[in-house]
Amino acid sequence: MVEPVRYAMIGGGEGAFIGPVHRTAAAIAGNCQLVAGALSSSAERARRSGETAGIAPDRSYGSYAELIARERALPAQVRAQFIAIVTPNHIHAPAAIAALEAGFAVLVDKPLTDTMAAALDFQAVAQRTGGLVGVTHTYTGYPMVRQVRALVAQGRLGRVRRVAVRYTQGWLATAQDAAGKQAQWRVDPARSGLAGAFGDIGTHAFNLVEFITGEAMTRIAADIRAAVPGRMLDDDGAAMFHLAGGGRGTLIASQICTGDANGLEISLWCEEAGLHWHQEQPDRLRVVRRSGPEEIWRAGTDRGWLDPTALTAVRLPAGHPEGYLEAFANIYHDFAEAVAGRVPVHPAYASLADGIAGMRFIQAAHDSSAQGSGWVDLVGETR
Amino acid sequence: MVEPVRYAMIGGGEGAFIGPVHRTAAAIAGNCQLVAGALSSSAERARRSGETAGIAPDRSYGSYAELIARERALPAQVRAQFIAIVTPNHIHAPAAIAALEAGFAVLVDKPLTDTMAAALDFQAVAQRTGGLVGVTHTYTGYPMVRQVRALVAQGRLGRVRRVAVRYTQGWLATAQDAAGKQAQWRVDPARSGLAGAFGDIGTHAFNLVEFITGEAMTRIAADIRAAVPGRMLDDDGAAMFHLAGGGRGTLIASQICTGDANGLEISLWCEEAGLHWHQEQPDRLRVVRRSGPEEIWRAGTDRGWLDPTALTAVRLPAGHPEGYLEAFANIYHDFAEAVAGRVPVHPAYASLADGIAGMRFIQAAHDSSAQGSGWVDLVGETR
Amino acid sequence: MVEPVRYAMIGGGEGAFIGPVHRTAAAIAGNCQLVAGALSSSAERARRSGETAGIAPDRSYGSYAELIARERALPAQVRAQFIAIVTPNHIHAPAAIAALEAGFAVLVDKPLTDTMAAALDFQAVAQRTGGLVGVTHTYTGYPMVRQVRALVAQGRLGRVRRVAVRYTQGWLATAQDAAGKQAQWRVDPARSGLAGAFGDIGTHAFNLVEFITGEAMTRIAADIRAAVPGRMLDDDGAAMFHLAGGGRGTLIASQICTGDANGLEISLWCEEAGLHWHQEQPDRLRVVRRSGPEEIWRAGTDRGWLDPTALTAVRLPAGHPEGYLEAFANIYHDFAEAVAGRVPVHPAYASLADGIAGMRFIQAAHDSSAQGSGWVDLVGETR
Amino acid sequence: MVEPVRYAMIGGGEGAFIGPVHRTAAAIAGNCQLVAGALSSSAERARRSGETAGIAPDRSYGSYAELIARERALPAQVRAQFIAIVTPNHIHAPAAIAALEAGFAVLVDKPLTDTMAAALDFQAVAQRTGGLVGVTHTYTGYPMVRQVRALVAQGRLGRVRRVAVRYTQGWLATAQDAAGKQAQWRVDPARSGLAGAFGDIGTHAFNLVEFITGEAMTRIAADIRAAVPGRMLDDDGAAMFHLAGGGRGTLIASQICTGDANGLEISLWCEEAGLHWHQEQPDRLRVVRRSGPEEIWRAGTDRGWLDPTALTAVRLPAGHPEGYLEAFANIYHDFAEAVAGRVPVHPAYASLADGIAGMRFIQAAHDSSAQGSGWVDLVGETR
Repeated sequence: MVEPVRYAMIGGGEGAFIGPVHRTAAAIAGNCQLVAGALSSSAERARRSGETAGIAPDRSYGSYAELIARERALPAQVRAQFIAIVTPNHIHAPAAIAALEAGFAVLVDKPLTDTMAAALDFQAVAQRTGGLVGVTHTYTGYPMVRQVRALVAQGRLGRVRRVAVRYTQGWLATAQDAAGKQAQWRVDPARSGLAGAFGDIGTHAFNLVEFITGEAMTRIAADIRAAVPGRMLDDDGAAMFHLAGGGRGTLIASQICTGDANGLEISLWCEEAGLHWHQEQPDRLRVVRRSGPEEIWRAGTDRGWLDPTALTAVRLPAGHPEGYLEAFANIYHDFAEAVAGRVPVHPAYASLADGIAGMRFIQAAHDSSAQGSGWVDLVGETR
Repeated sequence: MVEPVRYAMIGGGEGAFIGPVHRTAAAIAGNCQLVAGALSSSAERARRSGETAGIAPDRSYGSYAELIARERALPAQVRAQFIAIVTPNHIHAPAAIAALEAGFAVLVDKPLTDTMAAALDFQAVAQRTGGLVGVTHTYTGYPMVRQVRALVAQGRLGRVRRVAVRYTQGWLATAQDAAGKQAQWRVDPARSGLAGAFGDIGTHAFNLVEFITGEAMTRIAADIRAAVPGRMLDDDGAAMFHLAGGGRGTLIASQICTGDANGLEISLWCEEAGLHWHQEQPDRLRVVRRSGPEEIWRAGTDRGWLDPTALTAVRLPAGHPEGYLEAFANIYHDFAEAVAGRVPVHPAYASLADGIAGMRFIQAAHDSSAQGSGWVDLVGETR
Repeated sequence: MVEPVRYAMIGGGEGAFIGPVHRTAAAIAGNCQLVAGALSSSAERARRSGETAGIAPDRSYGSYAELIARERALPAQVRAQFIAIVTPNHIHAPAAIAALEAGFAVLVDKPLTDTMAAALDFQAVAQRTGGLVGVTHTYTGYPMVRQVRALVAQGRLGRVRRVAVRYTQGWLATAQDAAGKQAQWRVDPARSGLAGAFGDIGTHAFNLVEFITGEAMTRIAADIRAAVPGRMLDDDGAAMFHLAGGGRGTLIASQICTGDANGLEISLWCEEAGLHWHQEQPDRLRVVRRSGPEEIWRAGTDRGWLDPTALTAVRLPAGHPEGYLEAFANIYHDFAEAVAGRVPVHPAYASLADGIAGMRFIQAAHDSSAQGSGWVDLVGETR
Repeated sequence: MVEPVRYAMIGGGEGAFIGPVHRTAAAIAGNCQLVAGALSSSAERARRSGETAGIAPDRSYGSYAELIARERALPAQVRAQFIAIVTPNHIHAPAAIAALEAGFAVLVDKPLTDTMAAALDFQAVAQRTGGLVGVTHTYTGYPMVRQVRALVAQGRLGRVRRVAVRYTQGWLATAQDAAGKQAQWRVDPARSGLAGAFGDIGTHAFNLVEFITGEAMTRIAADIRAAVPGRMLDDDGAAMFHLAGGGRGTLIASQICTGDANGLEISLWCEEAGLHWHQEQPDRLRVVRRSGPEEIWRAGTDRGWLDPTALTAVRLPAGHPEGYLEAFANIYHDFAEAVAGRVPVHPAYASLADGIAGMRFIQAAHDSSAQGSGWVDLVGETR
């Protein structure tokens, strides 16, 4: 029997959306076991939340500092092997740095941190300690996203010439919509950081572009705003961008697009084919070549012609829909494998470098928008 | 902390499709814990499979008889609270009867049994012992299937006038296709029973019709065959049927429909609206009324206007696709709740009566087909 | 300049649906010219309707008998070259027979006639006179219907094993719905003939099956009824059928399917692929092979890889949707070409033999339904 | 009988795409009659093309100047009542000015002219002569485009906050693709003018935005290029824009998007609903409100609940697909009605002011792109 990889969770307690998602994803992954947690910054809520999550009372801690200190003191065969950080953005860096310093691997939700400075601190510690870091850009866990990446990477479709990505949601369409727990911290600069929608979902769109094309975004011209009166962070914006290989694109990230639920979709046109994917119909990759019928690719364990990176990301035969939780499970699965020393060829989780690139994207988009939407370079090696 | 409900599994070992599905579904459900198993009829394979499934060695048994005897001997706080039976059809009845006699609740895969006689034995024991029985008709676990049932049941759409249901797969399209472990027993009368496709998937289609309409199917005229030369059980067929409320319909069940993966779809037309659902796009219920735009219903925890039976069957906000495993998880969740004494209002699992009705459907379809496709009544109370 | 082919029209005056459709289709065809008409059985309405249709007053006649007599008397270079009959069903045979006897080619709407006896009279006269007869089964005029026929006929997809066709409409869902001019004659046995929905739309579905498969339907078991109280002709029914090549299928024809507009759709499964087409998205042919991605075929003059019969049935580059009127125009185009002696290889119009086959289908369906839904053979050479 | 409106055509001869489209559209419209033409700038080709188009030899002219002079000399009851100009862009202004000076109404294809200067000359002559001018922005002829405009205009959906429009084609994806007659003049600055893709299809996208929102585009930041080496005009680009009412948007216009046929699609998000339309599925308008199921609006003469501007733009009952030619026919129908003095309330054709606005859009997009993609105002009253 392969032992599951033990993990602890920071954040994700009562009322959180993403905490239960992480835990269910880990349960589906099948190679992870939740053994400890500091699920809330309130000790009492942390205890209650830990109970609900099935964490033994003596490993349900009142703060992330306590969790790290106490878990580190446990025998190696018992203590958590990695720590998942699913708090609001401003806690990401301090918690991750503390965890890395204590020798834990870290799986952190996106965006990497609240500020660019925090991101660079995080990076420095990771490099010094050599700790493993993963970022949960959920959407790269979908089999068909991995298939499209493989199709592009094989080179037979030619160079990428144009990309259109958009991530549109409607749940923050009005001032009243932002009253819930999920929304409150997202519209608060102190907890969310520089960016609102461009950080929360724009970074997903950005990461998807770089993941699928295998190219760095090199410059950006953006037009971002807080559309709802009184809001302090951007909730609506768009950008034009250039890719390292000469392709160009547009990116929309908005949380005031009434009626849209979780509308992440991407089209990219290579020289020999266009490829189209929409997160709300994740098991449908449309490929349209210069000639011949359109192709609809779907996943399934019985579809040996799929790229191995897609085939290993699906657990059921074709026609049995998998969704968001299964995509997320692939992230957990691959990170746990890496923690256990069985490194996947194309892991489903994003790297620290991807996370840093996402922060540069946020910064550049805001800089461009603030100075009349002119071009701003995304400096640094992004991938 | 709410204690999870402990369960044991019979069948579902190495090479099985449905065993891992049940176990992952139970993991997603969040209120179940696998504590014991007899995952194969070969003791050695049972042991290996149990290890993979994370079952403690001392509760991984070599046969279902051993499992039942040994678990029964454990203290009430330790032993399994229900037994999931996921074997080929001919084992369903003996294992279920043994489990019921030993006081266990039973969750059994469909079809209920291999023969009508076995089904009636099963029913008699269940009635005598009073044991709880559930049948895993997966598709009634989907939120939008539950929503369409609620829309019909509310009565505002008027009576059901026509139904078209089909369940088409292509995986047994050729003789060679039936060589795999999944296929072998399904085309073997000794293990599958009277029916092939009409039992394996036709019963799902039948159950979906009765679940959604809330009506019994009263008579059937069927045209069934083994299309692939040499095959001993039906792999392709169709039927016309009447419903208790006066509606009429057609049903197709075939496993030789090349290209189809898991094509279960249903249209039903009530006096005031048509309703359309396809399992491969499960989060999309199309409702077309006499006047006005078409409606597309989708699930999401943030959609308070959904029927409670649908709303409680979804775990993510709209736009985060859930699929087959989550539907199956709802079956496990509700059955575990019922075992724990917290009976859901509209449980997602099918009842023993539903399972018996499915057996009558198989029998009547074969009788009709054998006698020139004339009408055959489905006697008995079916719901 | 190629001279357009001159035609006259019987029926299709004020309030008619199909008359303007025929005339617009002919205008799109580009090789036809309407020169005469008897658009109504009321002389006054015929005159007014002819004026609206742009027919010269001296060639707008008060009855079909007058039209035939007067046109026949005109010089060959002036008189109509074919006569389109678009009346209620009971007029088809007498008008067509008179036209054939007078030497005119005849293009008649479906079903061929009101009764089987009338159909055989029609056939006898056509055979004796040698006059050209076409039947307007609109849907065979669609490019993608022609493409699917070609794919099947090429033989590389193997034999047809199962067909599911349905033609569902909701416009006669209630008794009140049948009050309009379009509906009145369709529910009146004196004008419509033996069948209601099975004649009006069931014959389209039947013809589509035979056209696409290239096979004759050999036997049928049907379950037909008048669902709306007080209605004298069938408005709802279904059937199972066998094909000459061993395939089997189901057919639904109903005009009480609330919410459906003009829902003609067909799936057929050959040994090597499934093919799926829906009239309401006519430029989308889904082909799913045993292996590899699904294929979506679309039409366009720039798509040289299409079968010639499909390619010549489209007039715009891909992405410029064509619809019902353009499909109908292909019928007119090909019939006019045939009248002018330029016979198309695979004409878009149905033949007299197809029309006779349709009548046999209606008769057999009603016979089967009346005798407990047992099998009834469709005798005669149907294609 | 209502007399059809007589029209003449300049351009659109042998090998042209848009000429036959205009003529078929006019035939479908039913209120137009082609009486004269100068279909090519080569006299011999003009004669041959006129014959094919069914123009009487004595009214098939060798040049537009001859057409205007000779038609003007005919009696009022005989001569063309309006002139359709379907030449390459650089002929639009001279031909239109000559026609207006001679007293003819003018229906001109888009973009209005090749240069801004020519557009202003055109406008000046139109204003001085008072001649009626229409521009054929085909897509505003679709019923569902008219419906979405009406929904926005009614105001119940609130203000427009974001728009995403794209018009992507793949037919000029390579240098070789531009060898055909259709392509040659479009990539030639001497005949096409300032813009390539942004003129040919970008103006359609621009016009669609202003038509649907009822608002002027006030500023634009664009990133445009000739992606195919050696090409002299833009074939690929994108822009961000602001609307007069405070909404913001993105626009993509590209003819190198491999695999795309005629991919014009628009999403706009108002405060209370998102609205989504794609030209390749024109009879499907998706409306998603803040709460409740999604809505799919479809056209049909039997759908009295549609806005009158949509209802009068459809000619068949629901379920009988209409397409590009029927949309174009609505343009011709409404322009002919206006010529005959029966002015439609919301005519389907674009006005001269719309055409001028389109030219300003082209100019501003190129100016912005040339100066680092900064914002450029679109001066002038655009609607």
